[in-house]
Amino acid sequence: MQTKKIINNGDDAVDEMVEGILAAHSDTLRPVGGNLRALVAKNGPRPGKVGLVIGGGSGHEPSFVGFVGKGLADAAAIGNVFASPPPDPIMECTKAADGGAGVLYMYGNYAGDVMNFDMAAEMIGMDGIEVRTVLTTDDIASAPPAERHKRRGVAGNFFVFKAAGAACDMMLSLDECERIARKANDRTFTIGVALGACSLPQTRKWNFEMGPDEMEVGMGIHGEPGIAREPLQSADQIVDRIMDQLLAEMDAPKGSKVAVLVNSLGSTPLMELYIMNRRVHRRLADARIETHRTFVGTYCSSLEMAGASITLIHLDDELQRMLDHPCDCAMFQVK
Amino acid sequence: MQTKKIINNGDDAVDEMVEGILAAHSDTLRPVGGNLRALVAKNGPRPGKVGLVIGGGSGHEPSFVGFVGKGLADAAAIGNVFASPPPDPIMECTKAADGGAGVLYMYGNYAGDVMNFDMAAEMIGMDGIEVRTVLTTDDIASAPPAERHKRRGVAGNFFVFKAAGAACDMMLSLDECERIARKANDRTFTIGVALGACSLPQTRKWNFEMGPDEMEVGMGIHGEPGIAREPLQSADQIVDRIMDQLLAEMDAPKGSKVAVLVNSLGSTPLMELYIMNRRVHRRLADARIETHRTFVGTYCSSLEMAGASITLIHLDDELQRMLDHPCDCAMFQVK
Repeated sequence: MQTKKIINNGDDAVDEMVEGILAAHSDTLRPVGGNLRALVAKNGPRPGKVGLVIGGGSGHEPSFVGFVGKGLADAAAIGNVFASPPPDPIMECTKAADGGAGVLYMYGNYAGDVMNFDMAAEMIGMDGIEVRTVLTTDDIASAPPAERHKRRGVAGNFFVFKAAGAACDMMLSLDECERIARKANDRTFTIGVALGACSLPQTRKWNFEMGPDEMEVGMGIHGEPGIAREPLQSADQIVDRIMDQLLAEMDAPKGSKVAVLVNSLGSTPLMELYIMNRRVHRRLADARIETHRTFVGTYCSSLEMAGASITLIHLDDELQRMLDHPCDCAMFQVK
Repeated sequence: MQTKKIINNGDDAVDEMVEGILAAHSDTLRPVGGNLRALVAKNGPRPGKVGLVIGGGSGHEPSFVGFVGKGLADAAAIGNVFASPPPDPIMECTKAADGGAGVLYMYGNYAGDVMNFDMAAEMIGMDGIEVRTVLTTDDIASAPPAERHKRRGVAGNFFVFKAAGAACDMMLSLDECERIARKANDRTFTIGVALGACSLPQTRKWNFEMGPDEMEVGMGIHGEPGIAREPLQSADQIVDRIMDQLLAEMDAPKGSKVAVLVNSLGSTPLMELYIMNRRVHRRLADARIETHRTFVGTYCSSLEMAGASITLIHLDDELQRMLDHPCDCAMFQVK
């Protein structure tokens, strides 16, 4: 039996989604040279500004294209579901985002994305555009601290992109934008918990099995195995378990400031996210850590997966300014 | 077997959700007199302004409390899951929203809500606050056109509240705010389609049965029966079916303007909503109707129900101005 989706032909899902995105957000987005897999912000790139190009597979909406707009990313390259975009749309995005001050590539640390973005960077380098790359590696369940460079990028993407996008919008240099992006990534920590699987539009079969009373802690946003498969616990127990690990890794002194992201992986509704957020705030207060800003909603999903993730970014004054900087994106605004 | 939810005790779900909402949105919201079921906008009510009080059962997040903030609703009364708030929090909201120019009550047309809001209006009238009520009745699947007053209010709430909230924020009179609210409701039309059921936090059992290849057209946001139970169709077929009915009811001449809302009922992800939106726009273009603005996302949900709704509001110049008026709410912004 196929999973239930409101789609047409599964092979057309991404292109049809992009057409629907452009129909809704034509004030903000346009396809570069008619390429539906390379969307650029109408109000983003400008001379002298470092360009920010993000991207990755589809199925994580509003990541990545939802974060394209003035103050955040200049362009997003859009891959098939859970598959990296090929070099072509990445190059299109790069040219469209280029303001003569260099371009920053930012995306989650996945082998396919690294290969294609690197290939694009190499080819675009021949056109004289300087490209730097900052991978996001916020998923602390995906590798031990000593192997941070092996970790995957998940919902914490959002904080790292936001900080970098603000730096670019403030017309800082490529060196500065890269430094701020790396610092934001170093200080961003995420763990997710899945309660159910997701299914690709092409196959409409669940991409893994999960028992009716099970959850998986640390699962990746493409269904990569987590660190523990266990009976489903209460919201407070789940949050405590995640917060214990996040706080241990973050290792922030009392009086530190953070921002919080409680993110739905797809089908977990706001009611549950806010119940989680209640406990997140309690744990932060207990640890004498100040919460500067809280984001609750769907920021990085995994199709219709049930579950949620919690992200903390350990702010300093500079990162706080970057987070508070206004942005005006297709699917996200900060005033 | 219980449904999977990230909650603690099901009876505490609403209060714990509100605590989590206040933890995230304390810049915008505060509980009136410490009552967690009566949240008022910190930046909303002011002398001489008509107050706008909305509300209803929980489980529809971000409706209703997410739309509380300057430029939209001044306060929301929060009921238990799928249950009307009692008169007390409605009265608290009314007093907090009152700026001496009268207060407008707006909510979906459900018997329990009507009873409790009317009771609150009567009691508050004794305090000398003039209250007017405008019910939303946008769900065209819930009664025939001749019995519009019997129809339920669903996702189209959002457009009707938005128009009224703008009128209030522009300091129009109570008469004018009520007139604009009624006009917005008269010109707003919604149909939803459900692919799956939802489950209450207290019972954690599916609230209706649906076959693995079925959908229900016209289902209400509490699982009220729709107009047809059928095999699941393609996105384009579903949209065509809904748009045929919406366009017939709206009966707008060529050259008319509308705004569109493609709303997730809970677990249907953005990819599917945008695929629907693509077809919505094609149908509107074919009908020579101009789309002024498009909203895609979760605006009025039904816990974790799978499915989506489409809403059209037939704009005139006045309603267009109201829709474009800025607002700054807990979970929604218009610049």
